[in-house]
Amino acid sequence: MCEFPDHLICGYRSFMKGRYAGESNRYRALAETGQAPKTMVIACCDSRSAPETIFDSGPGELFVVRNVANMVPPYGPDDHYHGTSAALEFAIQGLKIREIVVLGHGRCGGIHAALNSDGNPLSPGDFIGKWMGLLRPAAEQVQHYDFMTAAERQRALERISIRNSIENLRTFPCVDILEKKGSLTVHGAWFDISTGELWTMNPDTGDFTRPAIEDEAEET
Amino acid sequence: MCEFPDHLICGYRSFMKGRYAGESNRYRALAETGQAPKTMVIACCDSRSAPETIFDSGPGELFVVRNVANMVPPYGPDDHYHGTSAALEFAIQGLKIREIVVLGHGRCGGIHAALNSDGNPLSPGDFIGKWMGLLRPAAEQVQHYDFMTAAERQRALERISIRNSIENLRTFPCVDILEKKGSLTVHGAWFDISTGELWTMNPDTGDFTRPAIEDEAEET
Amino acid sequence: MCEFPDHLICGYRSFMKGRYAGESNRYRALAETGQAPKTMVIACCDSRSAPETIFDSGPGELFVVRNVANMVPPYGPDDHYHGTSAALEFAIQGLKIREIVVLGHGRCGGIHAALNSDGNPLSPGDFIGKWMGLLRPAAEQVQHYDFMTAAERQRALERISIRNSIENLRTFPCVDILEKKGSLTVHGAWFDISTGELWTMNPDTGDFTRPAIEDEAEET
Amino acid sequence: MCEFPDHLICGYRSFMKGRYAGESNRYRALAETGQAPKTMVIACCDSRSAPETIFDSGPGELFVVRNVANMVPPYGPDDHYHGTSAALEFAIQGLKIREIVVLGHGRCGGIHAALNSDGNPLSPGDFIGKWMGLLRPAAEQVQHYDFMTAAERQRALERISIRNSIENLRTFPCVDILEKKGSLTVHGAWFDISTGELWTMNPDTGDFTRPAIEDEAEET
Repeated sequence: MCEFPDHLICGYRSFMKGRYAGESNRYRALAETGQAPKTMVIACCDSRSAPETIFDSGPGELFVVRNVANMVPPYGPDDHYHGTSAALEFAIQGLKIREIVVLGHGRCGGIHAALNSDGNPLSPGDFIGKWMGLLRPAAEQVQHYDFMTAAERQRALERISIRNSIENLRTFPCVDILEKKGSLTVHGAWFDISTGELWTMNPDTGDFTRPAIEDEAEET
Repeated sequence: MCEFPDHLICGYRSFMKGRYAGESNRYRALAETGQAPKTMVIACCDSRSAPETIFDSGPGELFVVRNVANMVPPYGPDDHYHGTSAALEFAIQGLKIREIVVLGHGRCGGIHAALNSDGNPLSPGDFIGKWMGLLRPAAEQVQHYDFMTAAERQRALERISIRNSIENLRTFPCVDILEKKGSLTVHGAWFDISTGELWTMNPDTGDFTRPAIEDEAEET
Repeated sequence: MCEFPDHLICGYRSFMKGRYAGESNRYRALAETGQAPKTMVIACCDSRSAPETIFDSGPGELFVVRNVANMVPPYGPDDHYHGTSAALEFAIQGLKIREIVVLGHGRCGGIHAALNSDGNPLSPGDFIGKWMGLLRPAAEQVQHYDFMTAAERQRALERISIRNSIENLRTFPCVDILEKKGSLTVHGAWFDISTGELWTMNPDTGDFTRPAIEDEAEET
Repeated sequence: MCEFPDHLICGYRSFMKGRYAGESNRYRALAETGQAPKTMVIACCDSRSAPETIFDSGPGELFVVRNVANMVPPYGPDDHYHGTSAALEFAIQGLKIREIVVLGHGRCGGIHAALNSDGNPLSPGDFIGKWMGLLRPAAEQVQHYDFMTAAERQRALERISIRNSIENLRTFPCVDILEKKGSLTVHGAWFDISTGELWTMNPDTGDFTRPAIEDEAEET
């Protein structure tokens, strides 16, 4: 049947010659001792916003969940499968991570879908429609922010989505307890694919601003 | 309240000076035209197995879902939130991706949990226990493969998990139809964190072998 | 009647012109002083896994038993002929060898027979059926490791066979005593005919891994 | 615990750089298609008489049984483990080999033991004593060939042992039938460790002579 894609084999070869060749001891040690990342990132599936790329992270640094629109459902234990909640539980209880970053980004297709739903689901199962339902109360309002442009509404909902995920994170008892004890912190960030800008969320106000990146300008 | 983590700001600065500086035109173009990856990767959250790192992929190349143990639930449209199914629908129907890779890895904590469950969940919600329940029929059998060592059982279940995800992928009508039409291919791969080896799955037998990587050895 | 096979005469002539011509003094000395190998290898009859080839060994280095599937029966002195036990006794008591290596290999026909017995023996004597009976308890279990592929079951039993032989080796009082005294060591190894990879057994866990072969890659 | 022997790892590395590097395609093909040797060799465990070395054979050429003194027990199906008979059955019925060579050699320790038994077994199990019992009727006579020197008696029994194995081979119905049909041939050979000489057995008379090896002398 079908062969494994050539472009991936090619990329893997580049990895082996480059990063792995230079860090094989680190990989071996990480395999022996197990991972101990202190940071969990909840990011979008988007091909343009890989957390390891944006934060230039090496092996063992980031425990990463990726789903459409970097969302966290509210705490709701039942008999169903909850992939994101399972990852959260594993990160906090199993790995004892110290910080969680919800990373959104510009031009997010999931957010676009939430704002522009025409009632025609992508497929009969309408998984995207239901998944983006996590943002419905916000999306239904933002759709009618008529004085804003479509791009402004999109960016607004992208940031609302990050605050919404953080709010839902805090419905998990373990997050709430550990954050209050000071042993876990929760952060938001938004990445502009076009300019490469990273905007971080002010935890008190929920506003996003660009952190001071010394010398950044010189290089870009 | 708390500041955005310094080590991430530091890593981001490195990204801006390095990759972004060298590829800013590509980022700008990807922002304008939207993403058009042809490959979806379903990988684990593990901090040691980032697909972009292993395949040395640039922005726009891989649409990535990451959950614990790189799992795909079987097709089951209902009123619940299905993050992985939503991502799958978005990738296939929205992005028209051409290939899906399920990427597992060695020393997977989720697989370890599935094999060594002692009945004590990590938290009252037991999200991991329920999530790994997707592998329960296999895990319950493999636990009793007594002639194998613990490490051999772990590796066996890591690979079974990949085959299981691929089997579940095919319960989605769109995957099944497109694969039969020849416009979508499905692949499995397994990454050895310690040695950096990539093993790819033979689509006919389900066996994993190392692809020939010409000249790989020279460098490593 | 029939002539001695030409291809063997031809190969022998090549040996005389090559290895023997270069090492005739060594052969003469080995004949005078007798052999004093420090290593015994218990290997399979398979035409693709000759120990002297795999370990690039010269005359006098390896004392080699070869039987189907590199097996060692458990200690069982009685009035019957025990070829492997006799070789073991000769190696340990007569030659005072210092290390025993059980060398298995991939795609072993004996292991395949043990896993795929259909009740029809190869001949009325059913010698293979009885010989592979040494592995029956394991083979009967592994046959039902249904979540693994046929090739995975084969490889699993190949490695179980090595551990089984090592376990049986230790039922011989002389092996047990000398190993505890530290004057004899016992090892397992598995050779992949296709890739040429050698995997060695971790004596503590029974797991097989590839030893670090510095610079191996440069040449291959 | 104990590490895998360094000298074997070293030899294996040499194999990978040498023979395997030059013949990797052959190894891969042999793995894919399975072995199909046309020759079975029954040889001694002695570290100085490896058949692949003496016949300069490559992978896939020789199916090799090695036991002390290259012996074949007479056909005797019962419930016991018969390693050599099992290998014979596998070679003839499974692999359809076309020729069997019994390869003896000079200064054989097993033959020496058979001629010089002092009633003190090497170990309480006396596996060697029983195994060499296959030659007892001959050994008991040759011990009293008082006009011959000890070395002459040793060489005589080495060759008697080869004829004895061939005689026992023919007690196996399959050998007998196939040989009469002309689809299987049986041969004897004896290797002089010191001089490197190969003596082959005249199938009609049982005598051993040196075959004409053109140009041999020039080189050695």
